[in-house]
Amino acid sequence: MKILGIHADRVWYKVTKKTKMAEPEPVLEDEMTDCVLLFCCVEKSDEISPEKTVAATIENILVRLGRLKAKQVMLFPYAHLASDLGCPGISQWILKSIQTRLIEEGIETKRAAFGWYKEFEIKSKGHPMADFSMSICPFIGGVCDGECGPKKQEHIEAACHS
Amino acid sequence: MKILGIHADRVWYKVTKKTKMAEPEPVLEDEMTDCVLLFCCVEKSDEISPEKTVAATIENILVRLGRLKAKQVMLFPYAHLASDLGCPGISQWILKSIQTRLIEEGIETKRAAFGWYKEFEIKSKGHPMADFSMSICPFIGGVCDGECGPKKQEHIEAACHS
Repeated sequence: MKILGIHADRVWYKVTKKTKMAEPEPVLEDEMTDCVLLFCCVEKSDEISPEKTVAATIENILVRLGRLKAKQVMLFPYAHLASDLGCPGISQWILKSIQTRLIEEGIETKRAAFGWYKEFEIKSKGHPMADFSMSICPFIGGVCDGECGPKKQEHIEAACHS
Repeated sequence: MKILGIHADRVWYKVTKKTKMAEPEPVLEDEMTDCVLLFCCVEKSDEISPEKTVAATIENILVRLGRLKAKQVMLFPYAHLASDLGCPGISQWILKSIQTRLIEEGIETKRAAFGWYKEFEIKSKGHPMADFSMSICPFIGGVCDGECGPKKQEHIEAACHS
């Protein structure tokens, strides 16, 4: 799971066009003020354990929200953060689960339309912690240090052959 | 070199605070309309051949601008797209060189302040080609297919020991 986060004064989006993997009844237009915008990209490797991916992502998001003293989140599916994407079904399940879990944690959470092209506006806050990225590895349950490639590959291969 | 591109109706930024690697006399505030915003992140591996990195990046940017029929670019240094960053000196040299080369190609090109925190506003166009990413590998002179990792490592090691 790759995430690009922006602490924003305002985020707005409006769908412009469907892709083949468009969710059927999305929120067509929405906005949020004083929030953390999370561009999210589910990766193929997250499919091995969607549950662990959700748990690790929630843990990392909550730490970040705590630092920012932020209570509102806009989850924004964004395929351009990774080259090896998760399939649409599991990706949507993961994003919806993250939304549900964040709401349970008391975070007001919106989720932008999955599988639709969208125009958007962002006004970022620009303070030293306002922009950040996270690479969540479901195998180690935390932010990936980029050194788990071979280990990850072993897990994927083990999962494929089990 | 990692690039995240957004075809935008408008981009605006204003510096908020220096980092340790702040360029001394940047444009403190700037904006551009009807342009391609390129969030750029120079990677450690680009240091082996900054010249090849610039050449490969220019080639890929020009192809993309052609498809979008775009003639204006805002280069925006953004460290959050990669984990292994190039050093500030070479990163700035690469970004300035890209700006110079794009201008030579007839593209109006602005470059946002390097090494400064910035607040920004983006209004994206949201059409099917409006958002894109590029991973430029200086060794193969084109968009990286993600399969050159071991080969790249060999090159880095060779460069370090030569």
